[in-house]
Amino acid sequence: MDASSFDFSSWAGQQRQAIEQALEQWVGMDAPAGLGQAMRYAVLDGGKRLRPLLVLAAAQAVGGHPPAALRAACAVELIHAYSLVHDDMPCMDNDSLRRGKPTVHVQFGEAQALLAGDALQAQAFELLTPDSAADAADSIPPAMQAQLCRILARAAGAQGMAGGQAIDLASVGQRLDEAQLRQMHRLKTGALLEASVLLGAACGQADAAAQAALLRYGQALGLAFQVVDDVLDVVADAATLGKTPGKDAANDKPTYVALLGLEGAKALAQSLYEEASSALASSGLGAQAHVLQALAQQLVQRSH
Amino acid sequence: MDASSFDFSSWAGQQRQAIEQALEQWVGMDAPAGLGQAMRYAVLDGGKRLRPLLVLAAAQAVGGHPPAALRAACAVELIHAYSLVHDDMPCMDNDSLRRGKPTVHVQFGEAQALLAGDALQAQAFELLTPDSAADAADSIPPAMQAQLCRILARAAGAQGMAGGQAIDLASVGQRLDEAQLRQMHRLKTGALLEASVLLGAACGQADAAAQAALLRYGQALGLAFQVVDDVLDVVADAATLGKTPGKDAANDKPTYVALLGLEGAKALAQSLYEEASSALASSGLGAQAHVLQALAQQLVQRSH
Repeated sequence: MDASSFDFSSWAGQQRQAIEQALEQWVGMDAPAGLGQAMRYAVLDGGKRLRPLLVLAAAQAVGGHPPAALRAACAVELIHAYSLVHDDMPCMDNDSLRRGKPTVHVQFGEAQALLAGDALQAQAFELLTPDSAADAADSIPPAMQAQLCRILARAAGAQGMAGGQAIDLASVGQRLDEAQLRQMHRLKTGALLEASVLLGAACGQADAAAQAALLRYGQALGLAFQVVDDVLDVVADAATLGKTPGKDAANDKPTYVALLGLEGAKALAQSLYEEASSALASSGLGAQAHVLQALAQQLVQRSH
Repeated sequence: MDASSFDFSSWAGQQRQAIEQALEQWVGMDAPAGLGQAMRYAVLDGGKRLRPLLVLAAAQAVGGHPPAALRAACAVELIHAYSLVHDDMPCMDNDSLRRGKPTVHVQFGEAQALLAGDALQAQAFELLTPDSAADAADSIPPAMQAQLCRILARAAGAQGMAGGQAIDLASVGQRLDEAQLRQMHRLKTGALLEASVLLGAACGQADAAAQAALLRYGQALGLAFQVVDDVLDVVADAATLGKTPGKDAANDKPTYVALLGLEGAKALAQSLYEEASSALASSGLGAQAHVLQALAQQLVQRSH
């Protein structure tokens, strides 16, 4: 099957169902004192699940281990969800609406939101390290577990997502040039999207050429995502977006639209999409990469 | 050498030097935009390094892999340090003094404190998963890496430290009975202390009996630590304690002293110490456990 005859939305629907079911089963279960409720509120029934879909698509492209891919897909979503919870807090973006619902600190209080974010990050690493003695059906080779933890920890930390958020924090009201803006987004949102592709690849056996191509794909896609986000922040309305639009401009945050203009930002998104496609074409994965191709296309054409 | 002739403070001094040097080398290096500075401020030159010492003592008792033990020692300290940073924030305990210095949010702002805590948690898992291809000298078997991540993630998360903090949050102004108070502390501080012992044990080859005995030791010690903390909060002054004393009573938080009286709390600490000792005696580790024995004694007799 080639990319043109592939029914992406049917594939994505099936995968999302598996992801929702796994998250429903795993997130915040048996957490005491309302913590589990806040964790589940932050994660369940929300979001496009873009990062989990990337994990599953990359795992599929390399013939990856299904239980590992599902755990990695959920783990990266927990990291993403925790970052949104903390990002929305009053000391950060002070946002009260997320995916059309009150944000976690509005719903449960700031202290519980802080703890829920912290606990979600820990649970991501718990999901990646199931005890094979306790659950043989879900058994993941220990070396694969370690590799998945390595990829996720680096992408989440100071030289990944958290570092990007620190640059973002320091950049409010500053004039960034394109290189600085690219660096900020490469870390802030790019690192986790890139990691999603690498996590999927780590669930299977990809040769060095395929690994390098998937990395290039993940990097281009990660940046494209942010550029499209900046465009949508200008052109979309709250109902479509599910969050407050125009927020970045109002907060005097640097964006690609501010830097390159609306048409320039759209052109950059298109060229990054082409970069991602060319990486896949050179991966040697052939038709197995068609889901990744379709995902890139969806991401650039999305309206929210 | 038996416990009575063992020079604990000389051992602890040497180990602390190795820990400080490793933390100095690893924490927040190359983190952008002031984030590394906040991370290093939170971790370096501070604290008794009790958890790292427990890791190293337990690893020594089971003939553990030294590079793994040092990484695990630092990783658990990063989790501890991040929890203090978040705990001190205005929405939690709102503390402005820690180890005699302004707390991280006072020094760097709330947003940076939030991010520094988040990045420290991620870095803990990064430390546990070095890439052996990149640094052969530091090579840790992948299965050991996975096991260390498993132990640490569980201890830090919703069914460990973060869960204990949620119970603590919900308990302000409530009357807890001893079972509830024990459950709160078992998670809030006990889980990470217990994990320190288990992390050390996972760096070597302990048989099932030794593993079980070390778990009992860790559990007793973890609770003893909190009971002693409650006692010190009442009897010590700020200069000795390095933080604001009497804070728990002022915040109407439940403590062992409030529940059992000062003498009752001291007696409980003593009986937990005896439980820890008896666990070591039954471990089959013999003289190799003498550092763990000395550590338990220090912990119960400490004045800050």
